[in-house]
Amino acid sequence: MAERDTNPDARLVIVSNRGPVRFSRNDSGEREHSRGAGGLVTALNALSRQRRETVWIASAQSDEDARVAKETSETGEPHEVEGLRILLAEHETDAYDLMYNHLANPLLWLVQHGLYDLPYSPELGDETRRAWEEGYLPVNENFAEAVARLLKNSPEGGEPIILVHDYQLYMVPHFLRERFGRDAFVSLFVHIPWPEPEGWRILPGYVREGVLKSLLEADVVAFHTKGYARSFIRTVRETLGVEVDEEEGVVAYEGREVWVRPYPISIDPNEFEELARSEAVLEREETVKDLPGKLLLRVDRTDLSKNIVRGFRAYDRMLQRHPEMKGEVTFLARLQPSRGDIPEYAKYAAVIEKSVQEVNQKHATESWEPIILSMEDDFMLSVAAYKNYDVLLVNAVRDGMNLIAKEAVIANEKNGVLILSENAGAHEELGEHALTVNPFDIDEQAETLYEALTMPEDERTRRAEALRESIRFNTIEEWAEIQLKDIAAYREQYG
Amino acid sequence: MAERDTNPDARLVIVSNRGPVRFSRNDSGEREHSRGAGGLVTALNALSRQRRETVWIASAQSDEDARVAKETSETGEPHEVEGLRILLAEHETDAYDLMYNHLANPLLWLVQHGLYDLPYSPELGDETRRAWEEGYLPVNENFAEAVARLLKNSPEGGEPIILVHDYQLYMVPHFLRERFGRDAFVSLFVHIPWPEPEGWRILPGYVREGVLKSLLEADVVAFHTKGYARSFIRTVRETLGVEVDEEEGVVAYEGREVWVRPYPISIDPNEFEELARSEAVLEREETVKDLPGKLLLRVDRTDLSKNIVRGFRAYDRMLQRHPEMKGEVTFLARLQPSRGDIPEYAKYAAVIEKSVQEVNQKHATESWEPIILSMEDDFMLSVAAYKNYDVLLVNAVRDGMNLIAKEAVIANEKNGVLILSENAGAHEELGEHALTVNPFDIDEQAETLYEALTMPEDERTRRAEALRESIRFNTIEEWAEIQLKDIAAYREQYG
Repeated sequence: MAERDTNPDARLVIVSNRGPVRFSRNDSGEREHSRGAGGLVTALNALSRQRRETVWIASAQSDEDARVAKETSETGEPHEVEGLRILLAEHETDAYDLMYNHLANPLLWLVQHGLYDLPYSPELGDETRRAWEEGYLPVNENFAEAVARLLKNSPEGGEPIILVHDYQLYMVPHFLRERFGRDAFVSLFVHIPWPEPEGWRILPGYVREGVLKSLLEADVVAFHTKGYARSFIRTVRETLGVEVDEEEGVVAYEGREVWVRPYPISIDPNEFEELARSEAVLEREETVKDLPGKLLLRVDRTDLSKNIVRGFRAYDRMLQRHPEMKGEVTFLARLQPSRGDIPEYAKYAAVIEKSVQEVNQKHATESWEPIILSMEDDFMLSVAAYKNYDVLLVNAVRDGMNLIAKEAVIANEKNGVLILSENAGAHEELGEHALTVNPFDIDEQAETLYEALTMPEDERTRRAEALRESIRFNTIEEWAEIQLKDIAAYREQYG
Repeated sequence: MAERDTNPDARLVIVSNRGPVRFSRNDSGEREHSRGAGGLVTALNALSRQRRETVWIASAQSDEDARVAKETSETGEPHEVEGLRILLAEHETDAYDLMYNHLANPLLWLVQHGLYDLPYSPELGDETRRAWEEGYLPVNENFAEAVARLLKNSPEGGEPIILVHDYQLYMVPHFLRERFGRDAFVSLFVHIPWPEPEGWRILPGYVREGVLKSLLEADVVAFHTKGYARSFIRTVRETLGVEVDEEEGVVAYEGREVWVRPYPISIDPNEFEELARSEAVLEREETVKDLPGKLLLRVDRTDLSKNIVRGFRAYDRMLQRHPEMKGEVTFLARLQPSRGDIPEYAKYAAVIEKSVQEVNQKHATESWEPIILSMEDDFMLSVAAYKNYDVLLVNAVRDGMNLIAKEAVIANEKNGVLILSENAGAHEELGEHALTVNPFDIDEQAETLYEALTMPEDERTRRAEALRESIRFNTIEEWAEIQLKDIAAYREQYG
């Protein structure tokens, strides 16, 4: 093994499928870019702020992205924008489609969230193998190749640190080792839940073992919760028969030690406090404040994991049992359509709409609509709703972290109550001060909605303060710093 | 704690929901009885043969059962029939219905087999609580009360050994301790899979914790496989926070040690060899032997866990890829209708029938029907099919053990090939000599069907001999003996 460089200025490379900006052309044919939204982008921004020389590699998604990709691949130099150094990897269209729409979503996503209706689905077979061999593997290799090109063009600066992100890129560590051997620090961060060993076993053998072996070629495998880290350790032990230390979070693999660590992702509280004061949000607040009664809010993609239908059914039952609440509360559901190409998702979107209609037909009055379904793509409107909710419902069937819970708590100005599923990753940190629900129990959720809507002000205040404190205690800057410290410690120990 | 009696002639009581005989009246008004079928009854018979004084307590199911229950409760004496001493417990009809049709099946069964379509079901709530409080608890207490009455009437013979069976009776250990304190040895045998901790967490808190605490009031908790025992240990650790020793199979609970042990259930090979030679089976063999080509067999209840639909789809794909097999094989599906009152099961039965029609319409010729769906309730016909299969398909999504695999291998006279799901409990013992399939992978199952149907004679022989040997190595007598030895060891250690 080559001698390791523990220089804190070692070259840092972030690899993720989605990048921090998206390029386009305006009407005059000039290049423009828009910042990517979403928690992962914010989080990785925090990571890249820790080092001057960070380069971020992501998939080219738009036509203009593809042009940027071509230019940077000719010069070998990353594209600089808003202080970020970006390199876009262009994939073959069919391969990318197979990776993204056939292997990562739905298969890995649904397996890792435990969402299959197992008597009927999945139906794995040759199509799965094709998506793996002609989609997932080549796209992942293409990423490793982009890393190799980058580092070849800038050989100075010691051993690189390569931070690979999420379930689209599980095979990247394997392809990186083919190119760099052990002369690079590699980590892979899994941002979605890790299932227990039997759940993982749904996958065909080549995915099941291929992914685990690739992940163990990394030096650190990271998750959002202790629970996911533990499930991963059990999965590799039972699938590959390797030695593990569950307490210490160490897996012995091919003569090395792999660290398996929880780093609960967070947000930048200042960002959300500033957003809450911004003109765009202030404008949109009026429409939110006009809604009758207390504000019950949910903000989600229409994902099978989010448990949107049971949320409406619980609300229905609450109104039935506590008819005095009619007109005293409005349920604002900010839902972002998601993955409509996947049949299970198209069906789910239809069931959501039907259940909203049912509840509204049953309980509406002339002056009051029980549920407002709001599907505009308008993040500032969501922040306006964050500021004003009395109760936020996060009842996910399973959820890697759920950053909305953290964002909304920080932006909220009403000491709003958080109802939180015990199966959301955020529950490890926030559960103590939230009202916990079992996502499968409609009556419990109905009663919890009522409890939250009628909670005395002093208890609301006490809980809301504790929630804010807990989030400020672990911000996205901490999240990034702790990882970089652990990387230094790893390199010191094994370098 | 009272001094324990380690006398091997201690009184033995078996408690299970279904009993070894069912009483009825014939046309002349005389009492008759029929032997219960099914693996559990055979197994518990083997247990009761080990001790002269065994009494078996079960639910009264028929009207005549209820009369027997009343007679025995008046005299306090068990009913003797075919060398068995039976005591029937009569339950309140509504309570039994809630226990059986609302709590045990579907809820516990579907949770423990991992069969829910989690984005939509289950929808837990007050109905679940009612089934628990007004069904499951009173029926379980009624069983404990029957044990107490029996032992009060026959106080001789030292400390009783009470062996409680399966998922309908999880709360019986709790109610037994209320009556006997520690002055009884109590075990509970779980005959279905035990899920991993996250699967168990689907249940509402009162079931989740209530069941676990009751099971830990037993001295031994038993399962069919090492995997289920391990999952149980993890479940109690994560749910109750108790100390466990996963390797040794010990849980520390309230100052005591509970043993968690795998005892893989088996069959009586002699019984199946005799059955295979019986007149009833010889008669029925002709119809089986008349089927064209090789015989591909499956024998199952139409349970969501059995994976019947994917089996037909795999067969379809095999015929598509290997058209030379048309007419060279007949798929005999012996299916026993099951739990038609539960909507999920009614839907599944319809999908099964539709998929049979599709395959038959697609591939049938004038002289050949690809799939024969055989649903008569005729165990001797199943044994006739056991004798003659070339390939037996057991592709369960999940299955506690699957005794059909063991019965059929012993009765078979063709050196038939066993295709076995890696998720059947039997796979721990038989997997090495079977052809293993991932139950979710249709193409793998299609190829495995082809491989099995075209396997050279010498490999068939080698595998079939190894399978028979493995089953004869662990018969139902061994299963019973080992448990009684462990009970003696437990009483010796902690008595």
